[in-house]
Amino acid sequence: MNDLKIFSGKANRPLSQQICEYLGVPLGDISLGNFPDGETSCKINEDIRGRDVYLLQPTCPPVNDNLFQLLVMIDSCKRASAERITAVMPYFGYARQDRKDEGRVPITAKLVANLITRAGADRVLTMDLHAAQIQGFFDVPVDHLYAAPVLNEYFLSLGIQPEEIVIVSPDEGSIKRALGHAKRIGGSVAIIDKRRMSAEKTVQANILGGPVAGKVALMFDDMISTAGSIKGAANVLHENGVKEIHVGVSHAVLCGNAMNNLREANLASLICTNSIPQRADQMPPNTRVLSVAPLLGEAIKRIHRNESVSGLFK
Amino acid sequence: MNDLKIFSGKANRPLSQQICEYLGVPLGDISLGNFPDGETSCKINEDIRGRDVYLLQPTCPPVNDNLFQLLVMIDSCKRASAERITAVMPYFGYARQDRKDEGRVPITAKLVANLITRAGADRVLTMDLHAAQIQGFFDVPVDHLYAAPVLNEYFLSLGIQPEEIVIVSPDEGSIKRALGHAKRIGGSVAIIDKRRMSAEKTVQANILGGPVAGKVALMFDDMISTAGSIKGAANVLHENGVKEIHVGVSHAVLCGNAMNNLREANLASLICTNSIPQRADQMPPNTRVLSVAPLLGEAIKRIHRNESVSGLFK
Amino acid sequence: MNDLKIFSGKANRPLSQQICEYLGVPLGDISLGNFPDGETSCKINEDIRGRDVYLLQPTCPPVNDNLFQLLVMIDSCKRASAERITAVMPYFGYARQDRKDEGRVPITAKLVANLITRAGADRVLTMDLHAAQIQGFFDVPVDHLYAAPVLNEYFLSLGIQPEEIVIVSPDEGSIKRALGHAKRIGGSVAIIDKRRMSAEKTVQANILGGPVAGKVALMFDDMISTAGSIKGAANVLHENGVKEIHVGVSHAVLCGNAMNNLREANLASLICTNSIPQRADQMPPNTRVLSVAPLLGEAIKRIHRNESVSGLFK
Amino acid sequence: MNDLKIFSGKANRPLSQQICEYLGVPLGDISLGNFPDGETSCKINEDIRGRDVYLLQPTCPPVNDNLFQLLVMIDSCKRASAERITAVMPYFGYARQDRKDEGRVPITAKLVANLITRAGADRVLTMDLHAAQIQGFFDVPVDHLYAAPVLNEYFLSLGIQPEEIVIVSPDEGSIKRALGHAKRIGGSVAIIDKRRMSAEKTVQANILGGPVAGKVALMFDDMISTAGSIKGAANVLHENGVKEIHVGVSHAVLCGNAMNNLREANLASLICTNSIPQRADQMPPNTRVLSVAPLLGEAIKRIHRNESVSGLFK
Amino acid sequence: MNDLKIFSGKANRPLSQQICEYLGVPLGDISLGNFPDGETSCKINEDIRGRDVYLLQPTCPPVNDNLFQLLVMIDSCKRASAERITAVMPYFGYARQDRKDEGRVPITAKLVANLITRAGADRVLTMDLHAAQIQGFFDVPVDHLYAAPVLNEYFLSLGIQPEEIVIVSPDEGSIKRALGHAKRIGGSVAIIDKRRMSAEKTVQANILGGPVAGKVALMFDDMISTAGSIKGAANVLHENGVKEIHVGVSHAVLCGNAMNNLREANLASLICTNSIPQRADQMPPNTRVLSVAPLLGEAIKRIHRNESVSGLFK
Amino acid sequence: MNDLKIFSGKANRPLSQQICEYLGVPLGDISLGNFPDGETSCKINEDIRGRDVYLLQPTCPPVNDNLFQLLVMIDSCKRASAERITAVMPYFGYARQDRKDEGRVPITAKLVANLITRAGADRVLTMDLHAAQIQGFFDVPVDHLYAAPVLNEYFLSLGIQPEEIVIVSPDEGSIKRALGHAKRIGGSVAIIDKRRMSAEKTVQANILGGPVAGKVALMFDDMISTAGSIKGAANVLHENGVKEIHVGVSHAVLCGNAMNNLREANLASLICTNSIPQRADQMPPNTRVLSVAPLLGEAIKRIHRNESVSGLFK
Repeated sequence: MNDLKIFSGKANRPLSQQICEYLGVPLGDISLGNFPDGETSCKINEDIRGRDVYLLQPTCPPVNDNLFQLLVMIDSCKRASAERITAVMPYFGYARQDRKDEGRVPITAKLVANLITRAGADRVLTMDLHAAQIQGFFDVPVDHLYAAPVLNEYFLSLGIQPEEIVIVSPDEGSIKRALGHAKRIGGSVAIIDKRRMSAEKTVQANILGGPVAGKVALMFDDMISTAGSIKGAANVLHENGVKEIHVGVSHAVLCGNAMNNLREANLASLICTNSIPQRADQMPPNTRVLSVAPLLGEAIKRIHRNESVSGLFK
Repeated sequence: MNDLKIFSGKANRPLSQQICEYLGVPLGDISLGNFPDGETSCKINEDIRGRDVYLLQPTCPPVNDNLFQLLVMIDSCKRASAERITAVMPYFGYARQDRKDEGRVPITAKLVANLITRAGADRVLTMDLHAAQIQGFFDVPVDHLYAAPVLNEYFLSLGIQPEEIVIVSPDEGSIKRALGHAKRIGGSVAIIDKRRMSAEKTVQANILGGPVAGKVALMFDDMISTAGSIKGAANVLHENGVKEIHVGVSHAVLCGNAMNNLREANLASLICTNSIPQRADQMPPNTRVLSVAPLLGEAIKRIHRNESVSGLFK
Repeated sequence: MNDLKIFSGKANRPLSQQICEYLGVPLGDISLGNFPDGETSCKINEDIRGRDVYLLQPTCPPVNDNLFQLLVMIDSCKRASAERITAVMPYFGYARQDRKDEGRVPITAKLVANLITRAGADRVLTMDLHAAQIQGFFDVPVDHLYAAPVLNEYFLSLGIQPEEIVIVSPDEGSIKRALGHAKRIGGSVAIIDKRRMSAEKTVQANILGGPVAGKVALMFDDMISTAGSIKGAANVLHENGVKEIHVGVSHAVLCGNAMNNLREANLASLICTNSIPQRADQMPPNTRVLSVAPLLGEAIKRIHRNESVSGLFK
Repeated sequence: MNDLKIFSGKANRPLSQQICEYLGVPLGDISLGNFPDGETSCKINEDIRGRDVYLLQPTCPPVNDNLFQLLVMIDSCKRASAERITAVMPYFGYARQDRKDEGRVPITAKLVANLITRAGADRVLTMDLHAAQIQGFFDVPVDHLYAAPVLNEYFLSLGIQPEEIVIVSPDEGSIKRALGHAKRIGGSVAIIDKRRMSAEKTVQANILGGPVAGKVALMFDDMISTAGSIKGAANVLHENGVKEIHVGVSHAVLCGNAMNNLREANLASLICTNSIPQRADQMPPNTRVLSVAPLLGEAIKRIHRNESVSGLFK
Repeated sequence: MNDLKIFSGKANRPLSQQICEYLGVPLGDISLGNFPDGETSCKINEDIRGRDVYLLQPTCPPVNDNLFQLLVMIDSCKRASAERITAVMPYFGYARQDRKDEGRVPITAKLVANLITRAGADRVLTMDLHAAQIQGFFDVPVDHLYAAPVLNEYFLSLGIQPEEIVIVSPDEGSIKRALGHAKRIGGSVAIIDKRRMSAEKTVQANILGGPVAGKVALMFDDMISTAGSIKGAANVLHENGVKEIHVGVSHAVLCGNAMNNLREANLASLICTNSIPQRADQMPPNTRVLSVAPLLGEAIKRIHRNESVSGLFK
Repeated sequence: MNDLKIFSGKANRPLSQQICEYLGVPLGDISLGNFPDGETSCKINEDIRGRDVYLLQPTCPPVNDNLFQLLVMIDSCKRASAERITAVMPYFGYARQDRKDEGRVPITAKLVANLITRAGADRVLTMDLHAAQIQGFFDVPVDHLYAAPVLNEYFLSLGIQPEEIVIVSPDEGSIKRALGHAKRIGGSVAIIDKRRMSAEKTVQANILGGPVAGKVALMFDDMISTAGSIKGAANVLHENGVKEIHVGVSHAVLCGNAMNNLREANLASLICTNSIPQRADQMPPNTRVLSVAPLLGEAIKRIHRNESVSGLFK
């Protein structure tokens, strides 16, 4: 295997920089930009013939521009005779369009997988896919990392007593995730039922499991976008006498009314990763951004050296 | 579009027969069997050149034989110049191998999707996939039917009062399904938590939602295989004073220790469909098999006539 | 062939509307938009199973959003079992990235062709590609229309005497186009040489052919983006005593400093088509937008009816 | 090239063990089995990232289970980032379905080739294909070994005088094979004509060539399945006064009525290879199983080291 | 299905003309030729959009020119939006390169199949492939016709008594063919063994079966190229006292020393088909060319009308 | 990367020999020829398993034979397990059929690209493509070399004063090429306008730019085939008082009436490369053939060593 080369798209250059620091390699020299009419331009400024190339680009907003930039980078590398091209996507956009819930809609996550493969990527490295089945949307190898250990390590470091903790799933789709965190962190588990589940309509009916009163609630999800779901869940928890609420997510997209919703959710803290770049002035106070650069960097090192990635978490 | 032709694999010929009766067309003439060494043989005995061909074969046990028979039928039709080949798979085997939960395992459901497409199927018609994302494992069109209306119609016909009913999810993976049935049938909702969810370890802690005492529990799942999960859930319900338990599933695979487990579950009834062929002597008493032949037949008719299938349930 | 269905992306809905009026068919009912995080959404609101579907979308700025919307529309139609999907792209963005002029750059026009085919388009209808070879980037059939007759018809209607006219190519890449127009409109031909072509450096040296003094210059190109090239050519023509300058282009992208450049070019008129939507308040005065709706509509009609499209211009 | 890794499917683990012994490498650690519903399960228990992997699996009966297990192993290796995957199939099942002899039948051998390639095999190593043209069913490289030298070496070691020997082809399809063996072993050649070849219908008419009376007949074929053909040929030979009959085959499938037929054939010996696993208690007495482990092991070594395989027999 | 269109390459225009006469349709208008540097040129002169197109071209010598002309015709039709393209190849060149007999040689017949499919053919109609397995080299449908009935009909019309006839296979590869003809025409069967089959080396040893003395020998093969094999076989037959020899072949390539060899073979007649164009002055006397135009024409008609082709010979 | 192996097709073995001398490696041992019926034969006589193989074959006349020979060589190498196959095509035939200028014609250059890729080439090395967009006809990497530096070096070595030189484009399609040479060699630029460009029809009107009287004209093109265009341009230059004319081309096909046309063009010299083999007795006097062996050899060396090829001309 020839030299490792890492190039960063424009979506999250600080993360790429951190990963290169972890690996002790320089960030590759690439010119990315736009022509006057907005068309994406790309020029790789160093030789990559026969190299093992990693292209870092989360497909966070503006998703179409970031995705197309990634595709153009792949095309450039393929035509420049890279030995192997790995698309490193710490956040995989369009993941929620992963099935047809009604007639005549796209399965955009599969479309994206097809486009990435068609452009010429030989493999994909990603993190906390919205649905694990998206791995199967690819026929090329996918290495799928989990940010959960990073989040767990943080919460464990806070020293909260397990009996004080209730791990909360903000809806019925994240219950598996909640159970997984509970296994590591301890505490009881509760699920917020966003839909009316019985005729009684009492507040109590909206929480399965628990109890939450007087507890420190740790609420986990794979991503926050408008934070509407988080706000709703937080309201139910507050109404039921929770002591304080901490939210842990892998991907903080934070769009639309997110800032308002988060303020109204009255969280003790919001913990997320830097899979998507976060600017301090665009985050609520009490936000803490944990770095996944060591996780991604270690995975890249192991992929490059043909060492086990699944062994990374043992 | 030329004539509609329907051929049945050997996995569920009675269902194929019922579908043909619904459609008022004869079942196609095909010879399927095995050579002395067990290799699958296939010979289509009527002309299918330019026809719109539907091949019916649930990939239930023996799954590899049924799957390979389907592949061989597709190859025969393709080489015999069928205009369009639709694989009709009322039960899609290997659906639970839909993602990599650990390193160095297959995503068999994707492999199966690839094999079916490679053999030459132009489209797929299936029912109640274990994970809806499997639709995206295909690039050919997939029509995905739901047996839920058939099950709901049956339970509604029993005339149980909604306030008597509790809809139960036997584990945390089926809660969405439970909520969906509750929307149509009414009743409160409860989830059986198979894993220890808190330090208290009381029986009560194993049910989220409810209550179940004195209620008629309707427990839904996409499939039963060994019925171990059903038995465990039923035990919890009985311990918590449930009045009676009815189980509704789309696909009754019933393998391994299923008969024992179902007996021990002490169910009031087991309701399933004929997506997989059921023999009376291999089913527990109190079993009722509902036919999905009208559902599949209507879908085939609409596909053949270019009418909306998603409109089927409006 | 079943019914013709035409759906419009958001890039140029007025043109789609005109095409439907030409054809006497209603514009298809489709919901296109963005999720809160900016991801493209798509839902087709009428049945298209077995239909002959045309998706209209020039990939003008914002090019990545327009292109991705087109891809998502194609995916939706394919999964909804359209019989045939034609991507109608009156303007084909990224066409200028059609070859590698230096090392380690993409051939983005080929990438786009691959993406459109991978998404599921069965054929492409486009107009005035920047390079005709882009037809060969596709393996699916491409129907390539020319706006030249529309432009020629307009200029001939002005009644200028051929001996007054000089057809001008603004650079060495458009000389074939200039010769083509000269064949229909008449007049002599001149080429602006943007690069220093001899040591003498006189103004005269910058025009090949002509003469231009006292003539009405008709300058043609396939597209205007920043209009820098047009401004430069116009300056040379003015310095050489041209009487007046009319510019005719197929695609008016008009980006960057275009408005300033066009004002400084001091044109008698700018004639373009509506392949890209033009808003009166964003165009220079003396602009005239000619409609290509009849051209595209007639081509769609002939493709749908299996009639010759190449015969369209005979 | 990284380390060589050899994994065995369940079809013929003893052969795999012998090959590993020949190569001096340990057999790879893999868990293969069935879920309760009979679905094939697979888990590779050691790291194979970047390795040169060989998957040993003859597709003998139960052919569909063995074939599907091979496909699942390939999928697992591909997704686990093996550098190169070679499907080692000492016996290639379905090889007799290699053409359409009548309308509307499959070409199953081609289907199998397509499935193996689609699953992700990079190359194939096989032995004594029923028809050599099956190599062309693949676009990936196929290394095709011959067991003939192993069989010839055995028969030559018996020290029978060439003038005593008659090499017999049991039917008109194996005459090339008989001629090939005759070239190495010596002796005359005879063909059993299974079909009535003239109007005379005498026994004599059923043998072309020879004579066989008083000779030691060595009868060769690529495989035995029901042994019906062998029995018929033996009967003709006995009727014509042959001294004794030895049968040499590469692949001993031995299915259906094989044991009876072989007994009735009254053979002096049956010589086969271990391409398919043979259990002593399921073989006729006088059977001798020759090992092809050195042949396959040497081929694997040469493929792994980029040495000539065709040179193996020079 | 729209109109049927038939275009002829330059390899065998007379046959194409006859086929069109059989079908009662005009031969399509196409311009085929060469540019001054010898490059193949092609222009279809009538509209074929949406048509069912048949391209007739046996790939006889000059094989590369004929093959490439076929590929260029396919490309033209595909890009001109033909609905379906059938490559009609009455003679399939390169068929003898159908497997690897030694290391580092091509499987050219598979290469040709891949090229035809890649160029865009949707199906193939061919006749008397050298090896039937070549059907499996294609994944598109192949209709494979047999000229045997045409040859049999001719020989039966000669009124020779069956007991006078011996059907001869000129080598061990054509014995199946000889048996097939014997079934229809009657007579005994003999095989010429071209290789020394025993140590005795007598002339007698070179014929298996028979006898041939005093008989009318009908010798069949799929093709003649240099006629060396035919000459050798004829010599053996003459030496063994045959009365007269008739040779029947599907494809008469007649290259190299064929004319000399045929003269020296001293045949009573040579019967071939017009799958390859034959000029009277380039054929031996006593040659009779039978037309396969009705056979091919009928097959095309049935394919176009979606009627059974395998039923053609029942 | 394993050993470099270079094999030469029969189109230009002398060039291959020179390239091997430049590289200091022996030319690979390959047997190429024709079977008696003209079918192409190929046998590689040395082991290439795992090697980095380069196949040298310009597709000059006889183009179909040369192209097919290249395809057969690729197939042989792929099936013989070469690690990587690079098709080295110093002249890329069919390059002028690169777009559809009218209806129902092929895009043969794209067809050729598809065939080369389908046969199994992993990459392409070529020189002076007729249109640079042909790079985009491939999805595999293409390294595109320019002979211009070789030609420029030669003309600069003649020591003509820049003010004496006029660089002439023989038609409007080669003006970019002329401008490129002018940049390196100096001199003014002129374009021959082959079509009537104004109503005046004077000789003068046929030259854009210049002047040419008394000058040494250097006329450049990518290729000469019949030399008709060169003759026409030369006539115009002579009529306009040019002092002498030198022609520089990359590819000298020289077909049809080329010798006559070149004689009548009355050139001072014709400079071409050995991309196509030239025989002294088939070239006009005053011809000079420059070798591109060092250029191609250096490119092969760099590709093999993973060094920058685009850096070759810096």
